[in-house]
Amino acid sequence: MSDTVITARPGSHSVEITREFDAPAALVFRAYTDPDLVAQWLGPRRLTMKVDNWTLHHAGGYRYIHTDPEGGEYTFRGVFHGTPSLADGIIQTFEFEGMPGDVALEKIDFTEHNGRTTVHSVSVGLSVEARDQHIANGMEHGIRDSMDRLAEVLKTIEG
Amino acid sequence: MSDTVITARPGSHSVEITREFDAPAALVFRAYTDPDLVAQWLGPRRLTMKVDNWTLHHAGGYRYIHTDPEGGEYTFRGVFHGTPSLADGIIQTFEFEGMPGDVALEKIDFTEHNGRTTVHSVSVGLSVEARDQHIANGMEHGIRDSMDRLAEVLKTIEG
Repeated sequence: MSDTVITARPGSHSVEITREFDAPAALVFRAYTDPDLVAQWLGPRRLTMKVDNWTLHHAGGYRYIHTDPEGGEYTFRGVFHGTPSLADGIIQTFEFEGMPGDVALEKIDFTEHNGRTTVHSVSVGLSVEARDQHIANGMEHGIRDSMDRLAEVLKTIEG
Repeated sequence: MSDTVITARPGSHSVEITREFDAPAALVFRAYTDPDLVAQWLGPRRLTMKVDNWTLHHAGGYRYIHTDPEGGEYTFRGVFHGTPSLADGIIQTFEFEGMPGDVALEKIDFTEHNGRTTVHSVSVGLSVEARDQHIANGMEHGIRDSMDRLAEVLKTIEG
């Protein structure tokens, strides 16, 4: 299985993630933008995801709830800047409603080469401290689980 | 007149701006959120501003056009994350349509003390290079003009 590369330099606002998938870019883009597919891979394995809102255009919003086996709920929301497209990628804000005001900006790009697709994402927080807090809260575990689950989901859907 | 303090550390994604105004916070917040008032102060003095869209709530968008004396147009757009309020401030994305995809995230806070208000804003770009490009393009001049013009506008409106 391909490896997920996470880059978070000390003192920086950003976290960068790179991962290669054995699928064409159009398929990977679909897995990022169809809420029924997103719910199958986004987040740590132990959580289930329910999509509350998913309005995929400029100034549209999204919101989803992760539930753990004990019934604890974690709700996230954001807005799309620009209408997501394979050519221009996805630009969105991101906020855990349990830490209101701690908003990040994310850009996700899809690059195809020989039928495989590299997904590159960058997330910038409003402060270095906020980014460091996300890392301390286990962001890396959630990212690695998500990327591995996405690779599995891609094998199950039609191109 | 109070001074505008701009902080942009080398190698950082962020630009921070602090300015004190001789007006209560509710009035300053109104000047940031009423598009008819915003059009009187946002941007360098030599440009005129026309608001195309201003939808002030979570997942609402804004868009405006600056026009220079020669008729050149510069259009900007973004989306609001969260509904702007005096208590929680304003969180929004920002993009010059002439450089599509080069999006920043901004948070603006208003703190009142003895009838005066300190406005603090932080803007983070998706890359350090993007932030540096904004600075090279004359961002500081636009910020200083805007803050001075806002101080003037605040004197003309009722509390």
